[in-house]
Amino acid sequence: MDNLTVAQLNAQLETITKNISDLDEESVAQIQKRLDSLTKPLGSLGQLESLAKQLGGIQRTSSPKILKKAILLMAGDHGVAAEGVSAFPQEVTPQMVYNIIGGGAAINVLARQANAEVFCTDVGVAFPLEGDIIHKRVANGTQNMAKGPAMTRQQALQALLVGAEVADEKIRAGFNLLGTGDLGIGNTTPSSAIVALITNSPIESVVGRGTGIDDAGLIKKRRVIEKAIELNQPDPQDALDVLAKVGGLEIAAIAGSILQAAASRVPIVIDGFISTAGALIAAKLAPKSTSFMIPSHGSVEIGHRKALAYLGLDPVLNLNMRLGEGTGAALTFHLVEAALHIIEEMSTFADAGVSEQST
Amino acid sequence: MDNLTVAQLNAQLETITKNISDLDEESVAQIQKRLDSLTKPLGSLGQLESLAKQLGGIQRTSSPKILKKAILLMAGDHGVAAEGVSAFPQEVTPQMVYNIIGGGAAINVLARQANAEVFCTDVGVAFPLEGDIIHKRVANGTQNMAKGPAMTRQQALQALLVGAEVADEKIRAGFNLLGTGDLGIGNTTPSSAIVALITNSPIESVVGRGTGIDDAGLIKKRRVIEKAIELNQPDPQDALDVLAKVGGLEIAAIAGSILQAAASRVPIVIDGFISTAGALIAAKLAPKSTSFMIPSHGSVEIGHRKALAYLGLDPVLNLNMRLGEGTGAALTFHLVEAALHIIEEMSTFADAGVSEQST
Repeated sequence: MDNLTVAQLNAQLETITKNISDLDEESVAQIQKRLDSLTKPLGSLGQLESLAKQLGGIQRTSSPKILKKAILLMAGDHGVAAEGVSAFPQEVTPQMVYNIIGGGAAINVLARQANAEVFCTDVGVAFPLEGDIIHKRVANGTQNMAKGPAMTRQQALQALLVGAEVADEKIRAGFNLLGTGDLGIGNTTPSSAIVALITNSPIESVVGRGTGIDDAGLIKKRRVIEKAIELNQPDPQDALDVLAKVGGLEIAAIAGSILQAAASRVPIVIDGFISTAGALIAAKLAPKSTSFMIPSHGSVEIGHRKALAYLGLDPVLNLNMRLGEGTGAALTFHLVEAALHIIEEMSTFADAGVSEQST
Repeated sequence: MDNLTVAQLNAQLETITKNISDLDEESVAQIQKRLDSLTKPLGSLGQLESLAKQLGGIQRTSSPKILKKAILLMAGDHGVAAEGVSAFPQEVTPQMVYNIIGGGAAINVLARQANAEVFCTDVGVAFPLEGDIIHKRVANGTQNMAKGPAMTRQQALQALLVGAEVADEKIRAGFNLLGTGDLGIGNTTPSSAIVALITNSPIESVVGRGTGIDDAGLIKKRRVIEKAIELNQPDPQDALDVLAKVGGLEIAAIAGSILQAAASRVPIVIDGFISTAGALIAAKLAPKSTSFMIPSHGSVEIGHRKALAYLGLDPVLNLNMRLGEGTGAALTFHLVEAALHIIEEMSTFADAGVSEQST
């Protein structure tokens, strides 16, 4: 992909986005009818009912099935880490990749519980990496956005297409419930910038403590983001411009995996704050992609709920988490499966001889 | 139990409540230390970390384990249903019990997914019932609280002790993660009355639509509750008085199962609105029992969050559900198990060679 021009990369992206269409209304209606025949008050299973309908509308069937589940974890480093915006040193990004390869990270534990596989892709870690991950590095980390654009437009497109390619490969291998995940020291900083720009929110309302910076660190982080936006002047109407100038390689790949999932009509659970920043980019590039997104948890990061509201997503988990890696997505897989068990296994009023609701 | 006096029943209840003590602080501290050594930012797993500590503090060990899980579903009818406070006829209570015996209710589906068993107890259904349930009927439903007390104090105590007895039996059989569940047409009406009285809230702020009444029904339901409180004058400082006069047999049994779980040092997940009304009674009888309660979802019923806040519980699921039966509790079991997998399986900074956070 290194030799392709921006125009050629744009054309590849368009072949994906032009395939993203609506939910199948007939399947949604069929599942609604089924839900209303089940032995429970109308609508009383709330978001589980919405999930069942969404899955039917995505898979274009009244009997949606989940075959195999995967967390697509995208890793990348951030030049802006040099500004001291994180509580952890940048070396932690590759160390955590090895921890994931070894199976000891939180996402490994929660994915195992959910019977899901974790696929980690090096989209742009700044250190040499070996081992059992997907090697698709676009650059050795981004540039420092406080001193210039984080990426070129070409790099941003390449990273987007890396995400799409990984999603496509896994979907072809039979995975039909995906979750996003991120890894990259410093990545709440570009994510906050993206959320501020796309949702048109004041910076102080979307910048949080990330992995755990103190008050002084928080003030510095806000100032770094202000400086980066001031310096690079990203156009909020041009998602690729925002992504390239103040985004990240793994955030781009997350956006790409979401777009490919939507084009392939596969539901994708959006993890926490960084994944939601990627989802904003995806939604801006292809608004219909939001129909294929499933919300997970409401993160502690203050910008997260604002970003979710922009996407029309209401988080199903309230756990005060702020870890990323796909941990919120893996926990949400249980709820998605619960929704399908309900429409598959519950008895109807007629079958069970239960009197229906008066209307 | 029928022949025991109120004094004798009170003495039985006291043998349970006097055994409820605090979480074991040393185990909590050990788990905190373990959590802080794991490869994640400090505190970043939020409520999963709190759950791990709570389970350790309950089981008095730094390695809490879940062996077998059960939903203790309590069924009872309500004389107040005659006032037309529900969208369903009272016959639905026994019909739903048979649906549960048949395995086709929502709780059966969600408990199967969570690898939990469902035990349904007839504490006071108003119709004849046969089949594979726990038969411990105290009365054929409560009396109409709009015309007099729902129960005698003796009946309320008997129903409480039924719940405790069932919990004790299941705990002795090896179940060490319990969830509450309720079944009973009309039971949001007594639950709303309990929540209003115990949390000292205006009636209109805690009365919702239950299984799905319309605006006129909602106004009627509020009026019925006002009338019942006006007529019976329950003493909000006397939980048994509240329970007897405006409560329900299954609500009493839920309170009893919570108290027994706490006395036996077994965590119990509190399902939705009706279960939370039971939890309020338990908390009033033994304030330390709240340490053994695990919150599940935030129900659509408007009084639910008020009741949870009174108990100091923050719901972990946000699904807009309003079904009861233990459905929210069963879904929460996945999260409780996730918390234990985290402390059992995640690698430490030292083991994984990951750099620690700067402080």
